[in-house]
Amino acid sequence: MKAEIINVGNEVLLGYVLNENASFLSKKLASLGIELMCHTVVGDQSGSIGSAFRKAWERVELIILTGGMGTTVDDITKEVVCQEAGLALEKSLDWEIHLEKLYEKVGIELEEKRRKQAYVPEGAVLMPNENGTAPGIIIELQEKLIILLPGPPEELKPMVEQSVVPYLERKASAGIIKTRVLRVIGLGEATLEQRLSELIDLEGNPRVVLMAQHTEVHIYVTVKGDDQSRVQEMIQETEERIKGKLGSFLYGAEEETLEEVVAGFFFEGEFTVATAESCSGGLLAHKLTNVPGSSNYFVRGIVCYSNEAKMELLKVPKEILDTAGAVSEETARIMADNIKSYAMADFGLSITGYAGPSDDPMEPVGLVYIALSTPRGTYCQRCNFWGDRVSIKEQSAVYALNLLRLYFLGFTE
Amino acid sequence: MKAEIINVGNEVLLGYVLNENASFLSKKLASLGIELMCHTVVGDQSGSIGSAFRKAWERVELIILTGGMGTTVDDITKEVVCQEAGLALEKSLDWEIHLEKLYEKVGIELEEKRRKQAYVPEGAVLMPNENGTAPGIIIELQEKLIILLPGPPEELKPMVEQSVVPYLERKASAGIIKTRVLRVIGLGEATLEQRLSELIDLEGNPRVVLMAQHTEVHIYVTVKGDDQSRVQEMIQETEERIKGKLGSFLYGAEEETLEEVVAGFFFEGEFTVATAESCSGGLLAHKLTNVPGSSNYFVRGIVCYSNEAKMELLKVPKEILDTAGAVSEETARIMADNIKSYAMADFGLSITGYAGPSDDPMEPVGLVYIALSTPRGTYCQRCNFWGDRVSIKEQSAVYALNLLRLYFLGFTE
Repeated sequence: MKAEIINVGNEVLLGYVLNENASFLSKKLASLGIELMCHTVVGDQSGSIGSAFRKAWERVELIILTGGMGTTVDDITKEVVCQEAGLALEKSLDWEIHLEKLYEKVGIELEEKRRKQAYVPEGAVLMPNENGTAPGIIIELQEKLIILLPGPPEELKPMVEQSVVPYLERKASAGIIKTRVLRVIGLGEATLEQRLSELIDLEGNPRVVLMAQHTEVHIYVTVKGDDQSRVQEMIQETEERIKGKLGSFLYGAEEETLEEVVAGFFFEGEFTVATAESCSGGLLAHKLTNVPGSSNYFVRGIVCYSNEAKMELLKVPKEILDTAGAVSEETARIMADNIKSYAMADFGLSITGYAGPSDDPMEPVGLVYIALSTPRGTYCQRCNFWGDRVSIKEQSAVYALNLLRLYFLGFTE
Repeated sequence: MKAEIINVGNEVLLGYVLNENASFLSKKLASLGIELMCHTVVGDQSGSIGSAFRKAWERVELIILTGGMGTTVDDITKEVVCQEAGLALEKSLDWEIHLEKLYEKVGIELEEKRRKQAYVPEGAVLMPNENGTAPGIIIELQEKLIILLPGPPEELKPMVEQSVVPYLERKASAGIIKTRVLRVIGLGEATLEQRLSELIDLEGNPRVVLMAQHTEVHIYVTVKGDDQSRVQEMIQETEERIKGKLGSFLYGAEEETLEEVVAGFFFEGEFTVATAESCSGGLLAHKLTNVPGSSNYFVRGIVCYSNEAKMELLKVPKEILDTAGAVSEETARIMADNIKSYAMADFGLSITGYAGPSDDPMEPVGLVYIALSTPRGTYCQRCNFWGDRVSIKEQSAVYALNLLRLYFLGFTE
């Protein structure tokens, strides 16, 4: 099956927003073995949408359109596609009821113009939208598939995961391409390339590619073949060889985040954790609490930016702050130990450092101490990060989570 | 001046990463009045890079290449461009010293392969990279401009802002296109469209376009003309008319974030703030501390996920938690008042709500109370957000910041 993506929206054409939908969909289509021919970005005019649609209709079996599904005057994708495909728009009572409930919940009136989202092409299958009001739409017509998706990525992505992929999995079956993403933390791209030199292969089958992503590196293993179980086997063999070379630097796979991996250990052991943050400013707590169910293990967090807060809330002695300093191993250890004991948690995790910007040579930007207080003792890591303020905050929080993960794996001793 | 963007990288071609560089650059070029003809995505093979470069060389005066500037074997953009343009690669001593310092700082050996980043095309101008090791490169050749940028967006973006834009501003001067972005919070796209119905114009001059972006809506005002001051005047006139219709819903312009606007009020009044968060899990503190210099006004933050933490750290009475509940106006008000007084801050800001997911009808996901304790009294806002956990955390933190902003504007009374 061949596919084409048409992204509708002046805001994308003119670069006002990033076209993350194109990348997201490309990846999903590749993993389904669907060949993506091209992606086109057009503005909100019916002429351009119609012409892009007609060209795609001639060339491919699957046309995915994103954007132009909202309630404003320039949202016309559904209307143009119906016109081109010769389909009528019909009101979906289910979706209208769904809209009424949503609008009632937030106390906004469901005006007539907002009801236009309940009108869908005849014979279409609707896909639920957990983050918005526009339905996703699937049209099967003359051996071809047309899929209409809302433009906002936070609406499109869950819809693709939950509805589009399962649907296409049933439809697309010629040739198999599987990709597995392995996630690495604590090794840079260049070091990783050395360690995996025998395995990295940009053109082969399996194809092994590295991709640096902010604080991590991702390894993409792609296998092509005709036999589902042989493809799966080759993926597994390659993954095992990579595991053998990387050990605990490999922390997860696919969309798994570091905080989810860490959450797994907490759920398993019914452990609890409390945090004490200085330079990371709450980002560590934010990451930990992004995981559903984190209220079971995350008991409290302190953001102690000022020395007063460090003394009052975490009983860091004034002498330590005066002699060793607020950014020091001593302070980090006391912060971790004390938040653990005050919160009566199993673990205390602390971060103190210089996120910058600063021209003061006594405040070297990027110097960060991370301490983990555990039932078996307290561990401290000294880090030298580089980058801007936001990047140093990010690295601090990620390395703190990783210290927790390494402890659970038994590698800190 | 006409331009073309070439994004190099298998990871972009196959959709493994989003092509945010293309959108970012499109926007920057538009604001400079440079006409972007197309953008092409190619893989890491010298054949494809070379062929894309030759085509661009025939068609446009400005070629921007992104990606393939790292230290790994598949990073060959610089080499291919030199080959195509007939330029030699020469070692930059300045950049080599820069690399030596960076690597020494993080304690990693500067191996020979990493030194390849110090080799640059003869006669090139180098641009600093505050978040990485690859230099940005500008080549002026036969009346044309070639700009090479690193692929990671966190490296590319500051480089474009700080070096590429000022450089191109001096080079590009034919015809003027100016875009001004106005940022709105607290009004949805559809409501905004009604309020601005007389002003919205997708094709005109000025062109006025709305774009919903997660928790906010952005208004893009674009004016074309030949006369710099007339263009500026038209932008200002349109902005004034929009201001007249939106008042305090308009919170900022251009790249200004809500937390930066709020920071402005704190710096101005030398005020301090402390936060007490439940469902937002530290995100509010994280946002506040993303602003450089925030240690001057952000004194402390508490993330009190458990009822025990709410009672112990914020002295929320057990009776209130038992009767009104942890998610209630009463609890939000006490959290805000008490964090303010314990931290001896001028303002206390609290958030308590249900971020979900939950099937318990007693825990309506999206119900969030935000309270602001001020020298003049305590204000509380009840919100019904929708979306997933991460989205509800985001909306909670953003609306809390907005409550602070509205207070400073005098609109809460």
